[in-house]
Amino acid sequence: MKEPAAVVIKEVGPRDGLQNEQVTIATEDKIAWINQLSKSGVTHIEITSFVNPRWIPALADAVEVALGIDRVPGVTYSALVPNARGLERALTANIDEVAVFLSASETHNRKNINKTIEETLPILREVATEALAAGKKIRGYVSTVFGCPYEGHVATESVIRITDALLEMGVGEVSLGDTTGIANPRQVQDVLAILLERFSHDQLAMHFHDTYGSGLANVYASLQMGMTTFDASTGGLGGCPYAPGAAGNISTDDLLYMLHGMGIHTGIDHGRLLEAAAFIQAKIGRQLPSRNLQAYLSGNNS
Amino acid sequence: MKEPAAVVIKEVGPRDGLQNEQVTIATEDKIAWINQLSKSGVTHIEITSFVNPRWIPALADAVEVALGIDRVPGVTYSALVPNARGLERALTANIDEVAVFLSASETHNRKNINKTIEETLPILREVATEALAAGKKIRGYVSTVFGCPYEGHVATESVIRITDALLEMGVGEVSLGDTTGIANPRQVQDVLAILLERFSHDQLAMHFHDTYGSGLANVYASLQMGMTTFDASTGGLGGCPYAPGAAGNISTDDLLYMLHGMGIHTGIDHGRLLEAAAFIQAKIGRQLPSRNLQAYLSGNNS
Repeated sequence: MKEPAAVVIKEVGPRDGLQNEQVTIATEDKIAWINQLSKSGVTHIEITSFVNPRWIPALADAVEVALGIDRVPGVTYSALVPNARGLERALTANIDEVAVFLSASETHNRKNINKTIEETLPILREVATEALAAGKKIRGYVSTVFGCPYEGHVATESVIRITDALLEMGVGEVSLGDTTGIANPRQVQDVLAILLERFSHDQLAMHFHDTYGSGLANVYASLQMGMTTFDASTGGLGGCPYAPGAAGNISTDDLLYMLHGMGIHTGIDHGRLLEAAAFIQAKIGRQLPSRNLQAYLSGNNS
Repeated sequence: MKEPAAVVIKEVGPRDGLQNEQVTIATEDKIAWINQLSKSGVTHIEITSFVNPRWIPALADAVEVALGIDRVPGVTYSALVPNARGLERALTANIDEVAVFLSASETHNRKNINKTIEETLPILREVATEALAAGKKIRGYVSTVFGCPYEGHVATESVIRITDALLEMGVGEVSLGDTTGIANPRQVQDVLAILLERFSHDQLAMHFHDTYGSGLANVYASLQMGMTTFDASTGGLGGCPYAPGAAGNISTDDLLYMLHGMGIHTGIDHGRLLEAAAFIQAKIGRQLPSRNLQAYLSGNNS
């Protein structure tokens, strides 16, 4: 039994969630929501993205959000940064941590970033070097770790090679993304068995999407491999750019329910998290995928 | 690694699903849907309930449904039967298998059946005896195995005692119900470890609800304990009488996606099952909880 006694949940709803929603949320509502999250006991929030606003207009107010929120001591406020120009804005906005990203699949990387993996790495290295010099922590995202919507199978060797490169440039933690939610728990354990021969548990985080409903099963499979860090999104916010209308990231509230039921500590208050989920659902104006949120709103939260 | 190579899915949507939906489905639509399910490769369908129609008006057409469907060879058509009067109707309707039910929690049993557990057992024994004499198979449901909405903790000794009684009266398989969806995977493994000391894998089935999102994680935990039979509902149909608006049974389509991804055989065609799910969602007139169904309807079913 290698299941951990405590887990760190990294809330990615304000970035990965909102970036994939059709509705644009007002800046003041984003700020109010992030402040609610900070007060729920979440210790790590990815609050926005400094990609070019032309790509993701929903997050064009990145600097305003970052400067507008209350900074709760002990909470790390992170943001996605694609390149040196993005880093400049991120530093202006006084972000605690910079998250860089690329894909383990060549085709997905090219469609997403318009560059090959080899062309992407030096750009990330430049961001990482400058961010480290500015005293920031660096997180790395690797997409399509468990499969690619264009290529299908993704070789774990590619994930190893990229993770090596990210760690080498000063990234503290690499988040392994099941971008389209296609992973299954057996595969998760098989891939982690390989990766954990080379990397330590605290160098890796798991980033599951719930597109096909296997998200929490994949979390449980990861817990059994000793993993302790999971990305999740309040209410299950977000979606899949390849399947509009589909579910997004695994829901923070559902993840909490399972972990707390198992006796695993998170430090997060489930009730406060559900209030924050109800708040953002009302702003989005559609029923979010979280099961706990719907049970809570129906007036019965056991 | 005790995970099985093949799994039997028992479709309970036409009974456990529809019984908890607000909308009443026309008899001919139920028949059309069950016929679609039969053709998808599902080998066991709980098609209706012969409880008093005053209790569950949505299933008052039980006899018409049972006599109206195409009986596909190799498919077992099962129905819920509460007592001798229900059995009479079930025999008229030529059901293959009779499902009897009670709760592992005294309070839940009294609220649900209006009798104590001790008072319920002789009634089930009478149904089982007559059904066996009529050449029918018998299935047993035990509710609130992992916790009760009234009592909280449920002793596994109570589950053992009831399972003993059910097997003794000729029940071939006991389905262990997480009635309100509160189980977690660690608890599932702990409870199964106790039960499997006394009962064989083929005497037990798992019946999870997805009220709080842990349904498929609980399935994965059960697979690791060698369990091979799972109840599920097309589209995740149904709900929780204690939390209106909450999710129902685990979704057959999401379960299939995970099992097939893991290389576990079910004999069910995922595409046909999704067509059946889309059909019943259109009749119900609300978005069902299944993640696969929403991804499928958004035009992208990887």
